[in-house]
Amino acid sequence: MDNIYITRREHFNAAHKLWQDKWSDEKNEAVFGRCSNKNWHGHNYDLFVTVKGIPQEETGFVIDLKLLSQIIKEKVIDHLDHRNLNLDVPFMKDIMASTENVAIKIWQQIDGPIREAGGELVKIKLQETENNYVEYFGGREPF
Amino acid sequence: MDNIYITRREHFNAAHKLWQDKWSDEKNEAVFGRCSNKNWHGHNYDLFVTVKGIPQEETGFVIDLKLLSQIIKEKVIDHLDHRNLNLDVPFMKDIMASTENVAIKIWQQIDGPIREAGGELVKIKLQETENNYVEYFGGREPF
Amino acid sequence: MDNIYITRREHFNAAHKLWQDKWSDEKNEAVFGRCSNKNWHGHNYDLFVTVKGIPQEETGFVIDLKLLSQIIKEKVIDHLDHRNLNLDVPFMKDIMASTENVAIKIWQQIDGPIREAGGELVKIKLQETENNYVEYFGGREPF
Amino acid sequence: MDNIYITRREHFNAAHKLWQDKWSDEKNEAVFGRCSNKNWHGHNYDLFVTVKGIPQEETGFVIDLKLLSQIIKEKVIDHLDHRNLNLDVPFMKDIMASTENVAIKIWQQIDGPIREAGGELVKIKLQETENNYVEYFGGREPF
Amino acid sequence: MDNIYITRREHFNAAHKLWQDKWSDEKNEAVFGRCSNKNWHGHNYDLFVTVKGIPQEETGFVIDLKLLSQIIKEKVIDHLDHRNLNLDVPFMKDIMASTENVAIKIWQQIDGPIREAGGELVKIKLQETENNYVEYFGGREPF
Amino acid sequence: MDNIYITRREHFNAAHKLWQDKWSDEKNEAVFGRCSNKNWHGHNYDLFVTVKGIPQEETGFVIDLKLLSQIIKEKVIDHLDHRNLNLDVPFMKDIMASTENVAIKIWQQIDGPIREAGGELVKIKLQETENNYVEYFGGREPF
Repeated sequence: MDNIYITRREHFNAAHKLWQDKWSDEKNEAVFGRCSNKNWHGHNYDLFVTVKGIPQEETGFVIDLKLLSQIIKEKVIDHLDHRNLNLDVPFMKDIMASTENVAIKIWQQIDGPIREAGGELVKIKLQETENNYVEYFGGREPF
Repeated sequence: MDNIYITRREHFNAAHKLWQDKWSDEKNEAVFGRCSNKNWHGHNYDLFVTVKGIPQEETGFVIDLKLLSQIIKEKVIDHLDHRNLNLDVPFMKDIMASTENVAIKIWQQIDGPIREAGGELVKIKLQETENNYVEYFGGREPF
Repeated sequence: MDNIYITRREHFNAAHKLWQDKWSDEKNEAVFGRCSNKNWHGHNYDLFVTVKGIPQEETGFVIDLKLLSQIIKEKVIDHLDHRNLNLDVPFMKDIMASTENVAIKIWQQIDGPIREAGGELVKIKLQETENNYVEYFGGREPF
Repeated sequence: MDNIYITRREHFNAAHKLWQDKWSDEKNEAVFGRCSNKNWHGHNYDLFVTVKGIPQEETGFVIDLKLLSQIIKEKVIDHLDHRNLNLDVPFMKDIMASTENVAIKIWQQIDGPIREAGGELVKIKLQETENNYVEYFGGREPF
Repeated sequence: MDNIYITRREHFNAAHKLWQDKWSDEKNEAVFGRCSNKNWHGHNYDLFVTVKGIPQEETGFVIDLKLLSQIIKEKVIDHLDHRNLNLDVPFMKDIMASTENVAIKIWQQIDGPIREAGGELVKIKLQETENNYVEYFGGREPF
Repeated sequence: MDNIYITRREHFNAAHKLWQDKWSDEKNEAVFGRCSNKNWHGHNYDLFVTVKGIPQEETGFVIDLKLLSQIIKEKVIDHLDHRNLNLDVPFMKDIMASTENVAIKIWQQIDGPIREAGGELVKIKLQETENNYVEYFGGREPF
């Protein structure tokens, strides 16, 4: 029996800014441009979570998507949706709220719970705008 | 010669919250739910601006889209993009930052400049998420 | 104060077929083609519901989108989602399950409840595939 | 019985340039910018055709979409798809190939045939890029 | 000369249900939820087929997309479009009609014909709704 | 610290045709069909450029997206946008303007400059229409 990859999309709308505390205002603006606006800005984030596995014979499922969706909601969406990524999220504390870092932190939130549910998390894709997104494979480098 | 309608799309990413100062915290949360998060949240807004007119014979244009785009950028995008709609925008001062009100205020910012450029603004569409948007026709009620 | 239009999108996935009982099999296939497949086919339907009104001063809302969404879910989505439009839906009984007719029936389901909630339903858009959709304005003909 | 609006989407991929023969090269470039490139450029055009009518009782259809699609293909797509709008299309001869003018010409190509088929053409929407589109209502001005 | 990957998208609209015959009605509903509706539901499926190869010098093609499209239509779309995946499709007989299993069966239908046409099938992506899709690499595990 | 992948989307609108000079007109039409139209056709191309790297501690960035965007614009978009891929682009000279070949040539244009900017180009995705796209990994074969 072969492995197959299943992906679930969820959303969250959040505020953030890119700001390095140890830098001057001028350097923050020089490096981060408009993203350093002191009063924040925000995005509609699209989160794609991919799980790998062999479809179970009785269900045809790699993983029950209702269960996967519930894990993502409890561990990620409830913490990030309609929140400020810099101020409101314990697991983002003291970390630059770049798309890259948010994706890595999302992985850490759901990797264990998905494994406990019998799945194997293999990819996080986080889309910040229609013009940019990041992908994280848990450290693996498929290409 | 017949009238035709041309639409230009622009974007802005902004933070906001829905919050009525004269209400208690409890009432704000009861009415606005997660949108009342004190530390803000945000969106990727898609703005569609529609201008009506008769195509000019020499150009085939209702209005030069480069000029229309420039007006929208100067009067709207430069003020809203990577900003906080409640704190950073003079023309949004003391107004609830609902999608409805933002659309009306955008109309007021560009109606005059588009008329000076020889066009007639007839519609603002403002999309806040893939699941909701508003349309404003300057008070007209086409349906 | 001006009227503004707000639209909420909801989804449902349903099975249906186009089949006229009083016709022969041959005529059904001649008129409806593959859509007459006896064992059904199905679609991911996107439903857009538009309400018109004046934004309330204290909230900036034409209508509370959570309330609008709840009405659509109770009156429409709960009846159509993961259902067979020909067999499972009392309000579609004895009616050809064309996109046109489904849109009209959806209007009849939510027009009253939206009015009771203080809104005015002005448009239903029902998208069946990325290549076709219908719009219904409650009998009005804006164009 | 009420009127309802049904829309069919079709595509064409075409080359064109914006070029006014009676102007100098410099003026063409000043007015049309990169769109005046002498060796052409091109687009994936999305064409949306809207027909109004009362659903027929036996079919639930305003118009048979297969028939509408066939009319659009014969009268428009076969002439514009994988063509040069300035050079290859008799009904675009001596007309500036702006999106506005292409939309008007498409209307003229299909208005009669749709009427012969029992439908009433009420709107052409022609999308040139994800950032701009035009709408033409046959001279009517719904807003 | 380097390998490159080319992908063709096709569609089909189909009815199905998730139902395990050897289970009680109650267990089916507990496991599959609304997807177990006895009278079926359905989807607009988007199918993406990826072929790997070295572009031919004379054509610049990995594979002729018209030929690839024809193979997919003959071997897959003609069998699944406007069909019931549980009842109408010989190659889906006795198999749970989960997205995972449909993707694997599609691979088996076109892998041989694509190889005979000089191409190498390397990926099937099957999108069931805008919120979930599966990917199958013929048993390979790129990540 | 783990590698992560970041992708930037850019656009260009271009004319081209598929035409093999050493073949007869008849053979060109037989092989390339409508794509061989002598007076060209065109597309809205979507270009996705993926860079791999470890997020920098101070910025959280794999690469500054403004810098990546600037490289793509200078090396690719300025040369291809509103151009004829067969006639106007030195780096496409004497090469069949298939999507495959355009993607490979884009890689060659930006691989060095991205490396000089501290990034590692790992993937080009070039989407020609909503129904077809190619992916190039610089010769690597991840699946």
